Amino acid sequence: MAGDSVVILDQRALPHREEYLVCRSVDDVADAIRTLAVRGAPVLGITAAFGMALAATQSTAPSAPALLKELERVGRTLKGTRPTAVNIPWAVDRMTEVGRARSSPATAPERIREEMIAEALRIEREDRDACDAMGALGAELVPEGANVLTHCNTGMLCTAGIGTALGVVVAAHRAGKRPHVWVDETRPVLQGARLTAWELMRLGIPMTLISDGAAASLMAAGKVALVVVGADRIAANGDVANKVGTYSLAVLAGHHGVPFYVVAPISTVDLATPTGADISIEERDPSEVTTPLGVRIAPEGVSVANPAFDITPASYVTAIITERGVIGRPCESALRETLTARRSA
Amino acid sequence: MAGDSVVILDQRALPHREEYLVCRSVDDVADAIRTLAVRGAPVLGITAAFGMALAATQSTAPSAPALLKELERVGRTLKGTRPTAVNIPWAVDRMTEVGRARSSPATAPERIREEMIAEALRIEREDRDACDAMGALGAELVPEGANVLTHCNTGMLCTAGIGTALGVVVAAHRAGKRPHVWVDETRPVLQGARLTAWELMRLGIPMTLISDGAAASLMAAGKVALVVVGADRIAANGDVANKVGTYSLAVLAGHHGVPFYVVAPISTVDLATPTGADISIEERDPSEVTTPLGVRIAPEGVSVANPAFDITPASYVTAIITERGVIGRPCESALRETLTARRSA
Repeated sequence: MAGDSVVILDQRALPHREEYLVCRSVDDVADAIRTLAVRGAPVLGITAAFGMALAATQSTAPSAPALLKELERVGRTLKGTRPTAVNIPWAVDRMTEVGRARSSPATAPERIREEMIAEALRIEREDRDACDAMGALGAELVPEGANVLTHCNTGMLCTAGIGTALGVVVAAHRAGKRPHVWVDETRPVLQGARLTAWELMRLGIPMTLISDGAAASLMAAGKVALVVVGADRIAANGDVANKVGTYSLAVLAGHHGVPFYVVAPISTVDLATPTGADISIEERDPSEVTTPLGVRIAPEGVSVANPAFDITPASYVTAIITERGVIGRPCESALRETLTARRSA
Repeated sequence: MAGDSVVILDQRALPHREEYLVCRSVDDVADAIRTLAVRGAPVLGITAAFGMALAATQSTAPSAPALLKELERVGRTLKGTRPTAVNIPWAVDRMTEVGRARSSPATAPERIREEMIAEALRIEREDRDACDAMGALGAELVPEGANVLTHCNTGMLCTAGIGTALGVVVAAHRAGKRPHVWVDETRPVLQGARLTAWELMRLGIPMTLISDGAAASLMAAGKVALVVVGADRIAANGDVANKVGTYSLAVLAGHHGVPFYVVAPISTVDLATPTGADISIEERDPSEVTTPLGVRIAPEGVSVANPAFDITPASYVTAIITERGVIGRPCESALRETLTARRSA
């Protein structure tokens, strides 16, 4: 957040150009989220938080209750941008709560604005710290010289820190474990080819880009030591919603005896969603499949299914790596314990 | 073959433009194969056969033995174009054999030229008939109103007839079974998005294009009744080399209890190759992954692995559908029996 705007690195232009998008209103922020200028579960939460702070800053509401009403409306707009990642409603609710706690008519609206900015900055800092913690815990699970396969982008572009799944690789690299990364290109939006490859090359971490369909034979050839992915929402029972293609990797990893790790901050865990079947899967525009980067690859008028995510049942997940610990054999009681134990501590 | 040239529908321009490539020499034919202007195992065999016939037609060799020498050299060139599909060496050997059988110094070279053209036309006709036979046998295995998932392109573009795996769909459609096809886009060369979608739309067969990574969740949701794929080479033990991503589908199909059928003419079975491990997997240019249809999707200088094929062990294959019958639980004795039984009949 810079003055009265939120500045976002436009991920759609990567890896070819580093362009920044200046969002001067909450509608700009919502558009940036909808069009994937900004994407990745944790940074979506951070962006939504700054969107709320921006709305508070720009509001001319004369009283705290009036400001709160505005914020609730803004929150609904932000929640409506994308349905699957829980980090958006999580951040909106947390920000709204800050406003609500101070919404007595006696409070000056200015006071709430300050608190909102402070809370957004806190969410950002917590995410950076969570990345470091997940990285440290995850790196212990990475063998020396391991080939790590990953899907989509889960690095610094989609967090405030070193990343979730990619943060584990970064931490292992910094710990001298010399990992090599197989990067799934991740159709249709190509976050692997465009973003993960770009990040790893900048970091000097050895990597090889592959088509998504090549992962299985690498596993069969014993060339994958572990799979690490992020998450957009983790249900109470441990089922994981993540980028389409993740479930495929989970089945393949299980079949080949390869550990399959989900790396996500606890803000991604949604105890209010009982199972993966209760998670809404976003169906995105067919043009993502038919016209990647503006080039048409399929006949005009073709029918397309373009689910952006899929569900990996908890039983396929070797462990969920959170900033509060590694949850082996994820289940509701283990998740609840992790979420509540430290909260009260 | 038209006069002294071989005319090929340039598959690289599809689905946007229907362009024909006129190959005036064997080098032109070899280039068309190498650059994927023509692709797909059966039609590669047919193209190689016509390449041999073209060489015979254009030869100025004064005697039958001299012509045979030339043909052997041409055959080596054609065999060197692409290593995985066995149909190229199969067709080259069959054509060379025709020349060899008549290579006594007493035979007029002209006689051999005629025989070569006749043999190439015979190979083409046999392939068309084989497609019809595979289609009829395969269609019986397609339930009424089935969702059929397929990978790559296995239709009329890569055979002389209705296709191999796609031919089964076409036959089921013509039999009134109302199939619907999930078309894997098939990265990196996008044969599904560009070619299979185009064919099915022209045929009026209902289809939906998907990213390769979406297949698994469709299976989990019970939306795939069977998988049909082609083959580039089938080893003596029943292991199948086919487009990269095929093995992934085979594992997923097995995991979800979905039948997995390989549809291929017996010319694809190579008894001289004991197992899948003995099949050479072509590693193609990284630009296929980084620059689909001329648009760069990954950073400059990125490392890429681009195996064009993978191996599906026989144990994952529900049945191989050939023009001579359906081979359930493929194994060496069953394959040998199918290949030899009718040959002597």
